[in-house]
Amino acid sequence: MNIDMIEAAAERLSGVAIRTPLLSSPFLDDIAGRRVLVKPECIQHTGSFKFRGGWSAVSALPMADRARGVIAFSSGNHAQGVALAARRHAAPCVILMPSDAPRVKIDNTRALGAEVVLYDRETGNRDAIGAALAEERGLTLIRPFDEPQVIAGQGTVGLEIAEDARREDVAEAEVLVPCGGGGLSSGIALAFEARAPGLTVRPVEPDGFDDVKRSLASGGIERNNRTAGSLCDAILTPAPGEITFPILKRLARPGLVVTDDEALAAMAAAFARLHVVLEPGGAVALAAALYHADEIAGGTVIVVASGGNVDRALLIEALNRFGG
Amino acid sequence: MNIDMIEAAAERLSGVAIRTPLLSSPFLDDIAGRRVLVKPECIQHTGSFKFRGGWSAVSALPMADRARGVIAFSSGNHAQGVALAARRHAAPCVILMPSDAPRVKIDNTRALGAEVVLYDRETGNRDAIGAALAEERGLTLIRPFDEPQVIAGQGTVGLEIAEDARREDVAEAEVLVPCGGGGLSSGIALAFEARAPGLTVRPVEPDGFDDVKRSLASGGIERNNRTAGSLCDAILTPAPGEITFPILKRLARPGLVVTDDEALAAMAAAFARLHVVLEPGGAVALAAALYHADEIAGGTVIVVASGGNVDRALLIEALNRFGG
Repeated sequence: MNIDMIEAAAERLSGVAIRTPLLSSPFLDDIAGRRVLVKPECIQHTGSFKFRGGWSAVSALPMADRARGVIAFSSGNHAQGVALAARRHAAPCVILMPSDAPRVKIDNTRALGAEVVLYDRETGNRDAIGAALAEERGLTLIRPFDEPQVIAGQGTVGLEIAEDARREDVAEAEVLVPCGGGGLSSGIALAFEARAPGLTVRPVEPDGFDDVKRSLASGGIERNNRTAGSLCDAILTPAPGEITFPILKRLARPGLVVTDDEALAAMAAAFARLHVVLEPGGAVALAAALYHADEIAGGTVIVVASGGNVDRALLIEALNRFGG
Repeated sequence: MNIDMIEAAAERLSGVAIRTPLLSSPFLDDIAGRRVLVKPECIQHTGSFKFRGGWSAVSALPMADRARGVIAFSSGNHAQGVALAARRHAAPCVILMPSDAPRVKIDNTRALGAEVVLYDRETGNRDAIGAALAEERGLTLIRPFDEPQVIAGQGTVGLEIAEDARREDVAEAEVLVPCGGGGLSSGIALAFEARAPGLTVRPVEPDGFDDVKRSLASGGIERNNRTAGSLCDAILTPAPGEITFPILKRLARPGLVVTDDEALAAMAAAFARLHVVLEPGGAVALAAALYHADEIAGGTVIVVASGGNVDRALLIEALNRFGG
């Protein structure tokens, strides 16, 4: 993993990914007690930054591999990102999902042209089923975060932040990033190291799923006790990755943790003040900026709002409870 | 009014306004039966394109006038756009609002640093009160649409669409624009005339407030019978402007009309597929693209989503009724 891979991914994504701006609102600055700049990856294709990694990985494949197709294990944003990237490359795409995944996610992924293969979470072995399918059809597996070309794609978020921060005269700032397996955080951190050394990543996780925060503190990979039980489903992973963690250990500052309620309140703030839709996992970094200001340094904080794929019932709950 | 004024406004807005991208979703393309590209001005500062016109007008003032300050009559998006533009120029700003304006709009405008002067809609004469204040303090009035520097600012939306359409290889397309007094539509139309002659503006209005559509059809300025009674409050104006209408008459294609329910349905679609928040008046062009496809020509349609300042109750109604 190096900056050249990220720059190359940026070239392949140029004119394809949405070039998201940095948003701001004096009302959010007042809550946070400092300037807040928000990168809304919720308006990225398929509603999250995951499209970048998916496109980066699919577009990096040799033609022959691409023609045979790709496979991903996901019921969420990674599935949609890979599916759209594959379709626009005319590459076959298989997404392996648990049979109890929400109907709307199955339907959306199919609508993006992917073949959805369902397995039983209780009786089926996802990895074995996936390996058999990949073998049989010659598919390339695209992992959600521990995959160099995926990290390179997510790192393009960091290149864009570096460019826009420079234009805003922000030379030093903490950059809060929603963090599951660490693909986005580590890609951004590598981009900053090369292009904006005054910007540093702080991973943000949901309460009870702070594996990255604990791993950064202990210096070794720590695991979560649970794999479910937070509204922030997009960023619940058992542990940081083998590739992503060493990068974070070298480059990231300490992690931050927010509650589900803080994530919902940040969704309501993003609705009222930025006019974007965030999902809970996509709102954790904004929540940290707004409600954990005393754990953050500097006169400006930059926040990645990583995704917006939320059911309307949950958005309505956020607005009703925290809409002010 | 000419392209040089729009180019000059673009220079003054560079690095200040949010450079909004063009968004898309295969799901919206399916509904519309053609490619749909959406410019989300709801993520502009203060939640609507009005910030562009406000900034353009304030920044064009001679220093001495700016130091005395500006005044605007508005309870809505124009007020917030002018207020923030004035504050960031350190110019005093008076906003004249009816005393029955929603509390939240009064508070928001004050929070943006403006002095809000309230008048009684029944007994007060807005124009007389405004003229007296302006005279007394030497304030410059910034009209919401029939004002060359405001039109120039809104026209920068057109320059950006022209640039992005070229990159998407779209040489010819209809561009649907939410239309009240015509400041945004006429500014965009002038930008296209000079920079993208294959793009043409089609104003979109709410049912019952189709003054621009009827004016374009008759060739003379037609008025609405009512000034209230649509959810699309941001674009309810009595008639097209003296400056804006001749531009639209020369350059725009026929107007389109949508119902309030269609605007609400478009808000729900924007939530689910683009992850942005639109207000009803900001959603009418998207509504026309999605639900009046047979009145539109071409393989690609471009849509301006002009604002996102909606109360949560109305967004929730839209999601509950049309959220699919």
